[in-house]
Amino acid sequence: MGINPTMYRIRLPALAIFFQFSMIVLFGVFVRYNDFSDPTLSYEKNLTGEGVAKNEFYFRYPSFQDVHVMIFIGFGFLMTFLKRYGFTSVGATFFLATFGIQWATLMQGWFWHLGPDGKIRVGVINMINADFCVGSVLIAFGALLGKTTPVQLLFMALPQITLYAVNEYIVLHLLRCNDAGGSMTIHTFGAYFGLAVSRVLYRPGLKDGHPKNGSVYHSDVFAMIGTIFLFLFWPSFNSAISAAGNDQHRASINTYYSLTASVVVTYAISSLTDKHGKLDMVHIQNATLAGGVAMGTAGEMMVTPYGSLIVGFIAGTISTLGFKYLSPLLASKLKIQDTCGIHNLHAMPGFIGGIVGAVTAATAPNSGTYGPGLTDTFPVLKEYPDRRIGGYQMAGTMVSMAMGLVGGTIVGFLLKLPIWDSPEDEECFQDESYWEVPGSDEEDHSPAPKDRNNQDFQMTIENSKVDS
Amino acid sequence: MGINPTMYRIRLPALAIFFQFSMIVLFGVFVRYNDFSDPTLSYEKNLTGEGVAKNEFYFRYPSFQDVHVMIFIGFGFLMTFLKRYGFTSVGATFFLATFGIQWATLMQGWFWHLGPDGKIRVGVINMINADFCVGSVLIAFGALLGKTTPVQLLFMALPQITLYAVNEYIVLHLLRCNDAGGSMTIHTFGAYFGLAVSRVLYRPGLKDGHPKNGSVYHSDVFAMIGTIFLFLFWPSFNSAISAAGNDQHRASINTYYSLTASVVVTYAISSLTDKHGKLDMVHIQNATLAGGVAMGTAGEMMVTPYGSLIVGFIAGTISTLGFKYLSPLLASKLKIQDTCGIHNLHAMPGFIGGIVGAVTAATAPNSGTYGPGLTDTFPVLKEYPDRRIGGYQMAGTMVSMAMGLVGGTIVGFLLKLPIWDSPEDEECFQDESYWEVPGSDEEDHSPAPKDRNNQDFQMTIENSKVDS
Amino acid sequence: MGINPTMYRIRLPALAIFFQFSMIVLFGVFVRYNDFSDPTLSYEKNLTGEGVAKNEFYFRYPSFQDVHVMIFIGFGFLMTFLKRYGFTSVGATFFLATFGIQWATLMQGWFWHLGPDGKIRVGVINMINADFCVGSVLIAFGALLGKTTPVQLLFMALPQITLYAVNEYIVLHLLRCNDAGGSMTIHTFGAYFGLAVSRVLYRPGLKDGHPKNGSVYHSDVFAMIGTIFLFLFWPSFNSAISAAGNDQHRASINTYYSLTASVVVTYAISSLTDKHGKLDMVHIQNATLAGGVAMGTAGEMMVTPYGSLIVGFIAGTISTLGFKYLSPLLASKLKIQDTCGIHNLHAMPGFIGGIVGAVTAATAPNSGTYGPGLTDTFPVLKEYPDRRIGGYQMAGTMVSMAMGLVGGTIVGFLLKLPIWDSPEDEECFQDESYWEVPGSDEEDHSPAPKDRNNQDFQMTIENSKVDS
Repeated sequence: MGINPTMYRIRLPALAIFFQFSMIVLFGVFVRYNDFSDPTLSYEKNLTGEGVAKNEFYFRYPSFQDVHVMIFIGFGFLMTFLKRYGFTSVGATFFLATFGIQWATLMQGWFWHLGPDGKIRVGVINMINADFCVGSVLIAFGALLGKTTPVQLLFMALPQITLYAVNEYIVLHLLRCNDAGGSMTIHTFGAYFGLAVSRVLYRPGLKDGHPKNGSVYHSDVFAMIGTIFLFLFWPSFNSAISAAGNDQHRASINTYYSLTASVVVTYAISSLTDKHGKLDMVHIQNATLAGGVAMGTAGEMMVTPYGSLIVGFIAGTISTLGFKYLSPLLASKLKIQDTCGIHNLHAMPGFIGGIVGAVTAATAPNSGTYGPGLTDTFPVLKEYPDRRIGGYQMAGTMVSMAMGLVGGTIVGFLLKLPIWDSPEDEECFQDESYWEVPGSDEEDHSPAPKDRNNQDFQMTIENSKVDS
Repeated sequence: MGINPTMYRIRLPALAIFFQFSMIVLFGVFVRYNDFSDPTLSYEKNLTGEGVAKNEFYFRYPSFQDVHVMIFIGFGFLMTFLKRYGFTSVGATFFLATFGIQWATLMQGWFWHLGPDGKIRVGVINMINADFCVGSVLIAFGALLGKTTPVQLLFMALPQITLYAVNEYIVLHLLRCNDAGGSMTIHTFGAYFGLAVSRVLYRPGLKDGHPKNGSVYHSDVFAMIGTIFLFLFWPSFNSAISAAGNDQHRASINTYYSLTASVVVTYAISSLTDKHGKLDMVHIQNATLAGGVAMGTAGEMMVTPYGSLIVGFIAGTISTLGFKYLSPLLASKLKIQDTCGIHNLHAMPGFIGGIVGAVTAATAPNSGTYGPGLTDTFPVLKEYPDRRIGGYQMAGTMVSMAMGLVGGTIVGFLLKLPIWDSPEDEECFQDESYWEVPGSDEEDHSPAPKDRNNQDFQMTIENSKVDS
Repeated sequence: MGINPTMYRIRLPALAIFFQFSMIVLFGVFVRYNDFSDPTLSYEKNLTGEGVAKNEFYFRYPSFQDVHVMIFIGFGFLMTFLKRYGFTSVGATFFLATFGIQWATLMQGWFWHLGPDGKIRVGVINMINADFCVGSVLIAFGALLGKTTPVQLLFMALPQITLYAVNEYIVLHLLRCNDAGGSMTIHTFGAYFGLAVSRVLYRPGLKDGHPKNGSVYHSDVFAMIGTIFLFLFWPSFNSAISAAGNDQHRASINTYYSLTASVVVTYAISSLTDKHGKLDMVHIQNATLAGGVAMGTAGEMMVTPYGSLIVGFIAGTISTLGFKYLSPLLASKLKIQDTCGIHNLHAMPGFIGGIVGAVTAATAPNSGTYGPGLTDTFPVLKEYPDRRIGGYQMAGTMVSMAMGLVGGTIVGFLLKLPIWDSPEDEECFQDESYWEVPGSDEEDHSPAPKDRNNQDFQMTIENSKVDS
């Protein structure tokens, strides 16, 4: 098979334009401004004394912008570590996420934000939730990085976003769990979804590595831009949709301290497990962030500052050890090729986050530490004061994992159909398959490198045509 | 002529220091804190119950910081795509914008913010407006990138900022148009100004290209930092000075969705118009953002979420097609050499934004969708309830274009005077003309590359002296 | 001696893990949520009408995030200018700062935020203050960049943070100075501390330079990411902990204008002092920011907009001249090897900031410009209306300098003990000493460069063993 440029030239634009037209129509039918962004509705609120300063915009918008940076700069640049795949890392993130935001607005709206008139009413909270949803798509993308075409990624994103909304509805609405920072719905679901897809799309030809599946000096520095911005804004991520006031405040504190512990311990374990005691950039770029992932559910709860350090310590340790010892085993034994190591950064820390949330929630009602604020943090207790919320939290974690694994397996088989022009092994991990790429030598003024790349590409194409 | 290093060494410092002294004197005479930043004035407000939380700082400052990032990181890094012009792209942005902010504070202050005592009273709103103004200078810089000296850019910026303030006064004060995100005053004015300057400074020697007018692999990744930050914070740009409350909220929503559509459609058209179906980095770095430009006027209006998608779709399509087909024609037929393609990203989408604003405003009074909030969004209707505001909006767009074209033409001829030491064609697109530049090979420890560059530079100078 | 990889492999992890365990225990004993993040305490406040919107989170959190970006992206990337030390620049910043934040929370808490029950109560204000404290550690790191191991840096950070908290207590609590943006406590203290350490650790072998103590083209562009983000968010840095309302507003305005002047003048002086009139990236990356440093004390005072321009003008001039003429003298005459030039960016501008603060404060009580807001800006005047606060400010500046010099000298001698495996001169300025480093050639698929680096490293180690 291999990438067929003629087909690709038709399919990508046709799909994107068809999608965009559909979105315009569906937004026209369903999407309206909400109480805080519509002048008719909000005007009355203002008159009754709520006032401009109480507009939800001012409580959420700075956090939204931080989340927005994480999705596009954070995830996008984190994946630029590959030596010849930086265009696709940032560029496919840009494409998938903007595409996904529109579909997520509709899916989450139909499940969650539907008014009595059948309209989806949007405001800053929908923008945060849509960004969250595409975050889970980008996590799954991390496992597949370098091995799928943009068209395949679109066809992974559409069902994943749909399932994300279903899972979110089950976990947050039916089970009424807390999951403000998405340990369960974003990280656990997204990572197991991606790992399942990657398992089905296993490539035996890559089992001994690929010459372009690696970094160069500057690509590793670019990736650190992604890492650091994810680290910086994770306190906003985990607090963005928590109840306003002390809940939001507390979620940011807990995430801040949890991350400091996961960073420190990642440096320790990375050095300890290297035979020369040297640090491994893969660990520093990724495992350092495990403390943010693992605080996604319990962040807004009374997990205490020292509890946050413990969570970060455990998550960072497991994540680093996963990169060092587990990833090779997953690839060789379970045939899961996980380019970015999402099992280590999102699956395991996300699952830990689900457990931490369950334990913290289970002890909440009798802890006395919430006082009269208990039902602010756990609104479900207003209606069901005796609910064993810890058990529900754990159920939510398991549902998220199951939805990810089953959904990812099904989508994986769909993406394996011979209609997709999946890249040949030798076409993997290189931007030349999808981009016009300039040379890399700054002093070189001849157009040779570009032509050479195209030539390589053409030869590959021709070879693959002969093969198929 | 060519760059004369001795003259350059005198002119740049002399101008900058003279300018800075003048600014200190003029600020001393005219600039004071405003009601929200002066303790005397604001203290009384606090006593009458307005309170600290109502300080405009808290409604605008996070948006200001986002705008600030767009101006310096967004515009600065967007222009680093050139292989050997990254220092000047970021560095001249840094210089021009800080220089321009001071002058803009005065010009906008004299026209707009003058108190009854003849003082300009500054607060966060002035900081946003000064940043907006230098944004239009940086847009014009995009057309000239690589072909002018920093001293020439300073002499372009001074009259452009002056004209910007005049145009802003006409459009916003006399015509009383809405233009919170500047489709008219920032993008249309700035782009046509820059294109007119570029037309006058046409260089026949560059009509067949220049070996350094192109990117290398890593310079394209640097440019994506600019693109993504512009994308991320554009919702803040278009809402930063809208009326607090639902207007500000709505402007951010509309811009968010408009941009998603322009990104998706840019990928589609970029692939469709390439003979191998490959994506072109130039399109992805630029045309993706057209949805933000085109939402600069109507963002705060009831353009509706699906209307925003339509605007983004149209703007992204026209912008990408412009890069592909129109830019070569402009260069060959109209002799407009537009290095960054500002005609495609700012001029056309800005003009579209003006039209969208006019149409949306025209339908506003009878639409019923604003309810009693109509005069919050369109304050002019308080005084003139029957004004046909759509027509005024369109007039504002045309005035902005005309001011840009006429002003740019005049300034272009001034910059063509033989006093400027304009760079020779072979000195274009290289940092070595203005910076001490290190080598590019990481392993190279010899100082040879640096010396070689200087030698080249000296030779060029000597040659040009012989020529002239 | 030289770096002993076996020792290093044991020491770094052992220290980090021991530290992290200790932090968990100490946080468990001492650290609790504060009134704004604890549901019990804040709930009552809400009932008494303070309301969610008055939670300190909403007045400080956006500023905190800006400060957070400055510490990790700003300082981290500013130091990536070295051609082969980018991993350590960003990576050691990441490690030191997360490590330091935990220790700073405790030290500052014990001195400042201890409740009547002996508990440290944390909220967003503690997060800002902890970030500030590690900022001073990163300033000191700048002088030592390339010449110390991560383990040495940890042992520098621990006593420095302790001393920082002591000095902060003396300056802000005992002397009751104003220093919201830390000209005295962050910049003056941190810089003189680092310079003193560097003096004691003087390396004669580096007096004629080092082949890797320099930049390459792309490393200079990476460094500009740090510079620009520091520039952008410095208004937040200097206003983050000022009194809410007009004080915070004014501090951001003053810093904004001060920085524009220091940028413009740095370009002028940089060009003027080069024999070809060319700009020097070292000046642009650093001296441009002097206006932010020098506004760290007086930012919240009535320094006036034109006063801010004057301060930026002076600070930028002195800083650029320092880089050009003073740094070589410090190295040759005083034997202070200052890799990043912190004497020029932090020591001198910080000291200037202290003087500006003293003068502005001295004139405040009788100026009449503060009106009834005088005691908001200078709370000490409530208790001691006749205090000569200018003198106290100057005393605070001198104390900060003295604490830095004395503390740094002592710590320097501790770091000179023969137990530390300090890198040999030839091991300096290269990531290979601490990191697994990939090759730098994008087209190179062989693992040769990496092996070569390791080989060099091994050879160095063996040589140094022979030597010692």
